[in-house]
Amino acid sequence: MKKQIDLNSDLGESFGQWSMGNDAAILPVVSSANVACGFHAGSPEGILKTLQAAQDNGVVVGAHVGYPDLVGFGRRNMDIATDELMADVIYQIGALQGLATAVGTQVRYVKPHGALYNTIAHDKRQAMAVINAMLAIDNQLILVALAGSPLIVWARESGLNVVAEAFADRAYNSDGTLVSRRLEGAVLHDPQLVAQRMLQLVNEGGVMSIDGQFTPIEAGSICVHGDSPGALEMAQEVRNVLENQGIEIQGFVHRRDS
Amino acid sequence: MKKQIDLNSDLGESFGQWSMGNDAAILPVVSSANVACGFHAGSPEGILKTLQAAQDNGVVVGAHVGYPDLVGFGRRNMDIATDELMADVIYQIGALQGLATAVGTQVRYVKPHGALYNTIAHDKRQAMAVINAMLAIDNQLILVALAGSPLIVWARESGLNVVAEAFADRAYNSDGTLVSRRLEGAVLHDPQLVAQRMLQLVNEGGVMSIDGQFTPIEAGSICVHGDSPGALEMAQEVRNVLENQGIEIQGFVHRRDS
Amino acid sequence: MKKQIDLNSDLGESFGQWSMGNDAAILPVVSSANVACGFHAGSPEGILKTLQAAQDNGVVVGAHVGYPDLVGFGRRNMDIATDELMADVIYQIGALQGLATAVGTQVRYVKPHGALYNTIAHDKRQAMAVINAMLAIDNQLILVALAGSPLIVWARESGLNVVAEAFADRAYNSDGTLVSRRLEGAVLHDPQLVAQRMLQLVNEGGVMSIDGQFTPIEAGSICVHGDSPGALEMAQEVRNVLENQGIEIQGFVHRRDS
Amino acid sequence: MKKQIDLNSDLGESFGQWSMGNDAAILPVVSSANVACGFHAGSPEGILKTLQAAQDNGVVVGAHVGYPDLVGFGRRNMDIATDELMADVIYQIGALQGLATAVGTQVRYVKPHGALYNTIAHDKRQAMAVINAMLAIDNQLILVALAGSPLIVWARESGLNVVAEAFADRAYNSDGTLVSRRLEGAVLHDPQLVAQRMLQLVNEGGVMSIDGQFTPIEAGSICVHGDSPGALEMAQEVRNVLENQGIEIQGFVHRRDS
Repeated sequence: MKKQIDLNSDLGESFGQWSMGNDAAILPVVSSANVACGFHAGSPEGILKTLQAAQDNGVVVGAHVGYPDLVGFGRRNMDIATDELMADVIYQIGALQGLATAVGTQVRYVKPHGALYNTIAHDKRQAMAVINAMLAIDNQLILVALAGSPLIVWARESGLNVVAEAFADRAYNSDGTLVSRRLEGAVLHDPQLVAQRMLQLVNEGGVMSIDGQFTPIEAGSICVHGDSPGALEMAQEVRNVLENQGIEIQGFVHRRDS
Repeated sequence: MKKQIDLNSDLGESFGQWSMGNDAAILPVVSSANVACGFHAGSPEGILKTLQAAQDNGVVVGAHVGYPDLVGFGRRNMDIATDELMADVIYQIGALQGLATAVGTQVRYVKPHGALYNTIAHDKRQAMAVINAMLAIDNQLILVALAGSPLIVWARESGLNVVAEAFADRAYNSDGTLVSRRLEGAVLHDPQLVAQRMLQLVNEGGVMSIDGQFTPIEAGSICVHGDSPGALEMAQEVRNVLENQGIEIQGFVHRRDS
Repeated sequence: MKKQIDLNSDLGESFGQWSMGNDAAILPVVSSANVACGFHAGSPEGILKTLQAAQDNGVVVGAHVGYPDLVGFGRRNMDIATDELMADVIYQIGALQGLATAVGTQVRYVKPHGALYNTIAHDKRQAMAVINAMLAIDNQLILVALAGSPLIVWARESGLNVVAEAFADRAYNSDGTLVSRRLEGAVLHDPQLVAQRMLQLVNEGGVMSIDGQFTPIEAGSICVHGDSPGALEMAQEVRNVLENQGIEIQGFVHRRDS
Repeated sequence: MKKQIDLNSDLGESFGQWSMGNDAAILPVVSSANVACGFHAGSPEGILKTLQAAQDNGVVVGAHVGYPDLVGFGRRNMDIATDELMADVIYQIGALQGLATAVGTQVRYVKPHGALYNTIAHDKRQAMAVINAMLAIDNQLILVALAGSPLIVWARESGLNVVAEAFADRAYNSDGTLVSRRLEGAVLHDPQLVAQRMLQLVNEGGVMSIDGQFTPIEAGSICVHGDSPGALEMAQEVRNVLENQGIEIQGFVHRRDS
């Protein structure tokens, strides 16, 4: 039986006349598409096209929910009230479900975006707002969360299925946390190196940390990017190396063991 | 068997810290709530509260979809592209469906708001965008449309169920169209008079026109307002008179004959 | 020579069809109007009307700049980049200057709003962004800042004129800081008590703290509210008591000694 | 004495993380920059950078005001009330003035954008709202308007200075109006042809119409584009040909005869 791994990427991030990313190019590479829902990025017509393209490529769709901060692209921490955040997340998932239905697909998971992703990895109040939003709208939705974060525990305790994710282009500390972007070496740029690391992740369950220790990382999905030519090349290289080594790229929602 | 009629009103029109209308007061009066979806009014947390209150009052929920024009409250005509409008409408319905699911209710109908309502009554291009949006997300959704408008024909030809609506506080021309708001006498202010007109509408299928002719109006629902004390009083009077005359106030989606 | 004090209040906080506050009622009470600039509240047409009314009442105009967060009314902390905040503040001041020019008045001071007000009282990075924005657009603008906060020092060191403000309806700790809203007694509701405290503030330079100590408060302006009937009554009582005791209500920009 | 002509282009149209156009590349080619003001495009930090770059290149700045329609990029006709439009235009000009002041430049003219540009060319109600906005904030502002449009007459009658503009890449009818974009041949793609047409425009005061007639066009400025490599090349070719023929590229506000 072949090993499997999911590759996910952020899509649908254009807004009106402003385009971002290259959805057509990254869709054949990934198995899961985190689709923007209009709060940090994405306008309805563009989201609809992205969903249609995901459907055409057999790519699983997740809701890339974010803070209501278009001009800041959802990258600014926001001290949002619990009830507001819960309602905002439900609204975004619902909107994406509606658009997904219109093209014959469905929303299978939720991956929070940007500052919300980082905040709920560790902030229980906001984490529970997102978790409760998911439970309220569809308790079969899977949460994609930062590998090793307390969010994973909180979500599982709440009854959600969770998939931990690793970042292909990021260095890890030996405790399994991401090396801060402020430090040198935090972001990796060599496609071959990155692909070999991801091969090790799938085969051995971990990667070498920035200080040279083998570090276990629980990861049911690998996040890759498609918003620049270099990022696309790296994502493609990850896929190629994994497939050449007999690993199947498969959305986690389709996985035999999940 | 008792006669039945639906009373509908616009709700959920607050936005963030700004409140509008009096949802708690109008909900016991009506049988259907047209709930704002965030494009012309309504923010997620407030919409959620309105949906919960509608559910608590046994009031049927519809999506009050509008143009993306918060500062203009969706009251400004907008020359929006067909694909954009279709996606905008799906997005809004989906968002409201998500929030409705979270409180245990569901979206049963769509009543466009403001400038969109008026435009699609007669503009086939925009009308078809709304109709196709409804068909794409849920072809069981019912469209609430202006009595006598070509929209009703287009929607029925497209396979949608349609409910025509009359406006309690508006005068009609003898051809069944609304008297323009720019003309004197277009808006009625006397609760007793309005209630008697609505009684006639339900019992005889029409009202007296502004020039004194009995004018047939097809109406499965009557629109009342709750955004001022006077409007509330009028809505209550309409309900009282109808009920006192043995007419049941009942959401059209629950109607025995529909 | 009569003693003078400024009374300021937040105005222009309506947005499109949503109204907030009662600008017409509070304008005769205050000498300075903090006018919303469109980021947390205020739409251009409404702002223009508020500016015209301020001008008609001889009330000085200040820019009530906030975070770009309409749905949150600028009350949510936001981790905004320095360059973004600086540009956002310049943009808001400029927009208000333009509208003020159109009605024959001008923007004389800046009072940040909500979460921005609280944050820059203590956060030097964001404080300097606001200070540098003011210096860049008009170095004669006066900053209204929380009495006793480090912001006052930073702004004066940067060359800005600063007016410290006290809050009429708030209790103070004996170190001159505001009692947290989370604690009982933080907000005062008795108009007579509040008016007497403000009289003491003007005459003696301080108020009794929540634990009964006389506490010096540097205050060139007193913030009052007009967004509820009770708030209006309190503001009026403050003005009446001060005037009856021979204190002149006068915008700080007009003060003989400034 | 050398002949002079102005070249203008739309700049500052990025929004938050979304970039649009290539301001750095087009600025050395043009003499006037129509800078977005935040309603159809442009966020404050990006606008500030564009203004700084314009200032560094000695390019004159104008306010590219638009409808409040970010998702539609100001390209959708909007039935906006007169008072709202007037206040919206003042707000946008003021905001840009503020940002311009911060980088040591100033707003010298106004060129409406997109649907607003097209609408006010012929719709007197909306045209007068824009004209009155300009008069209210700074009656020395110059209006850039479609050559041959009634707007030019209305603005001059109102006391504004007006500069008519021609479009380098558009075909003209023999009555001096633009050939509709819906018709074949409406948009020109050959840089050399376009440059020769603009040379004829400057030297002879007109161009050949689509049906082969010499057609007078009053034009104090020529609009070029920089938002694609082809557009940039065309703009550069226009400038090169004009300069090689001894025509000076000079902002109309600096012109000796104006």
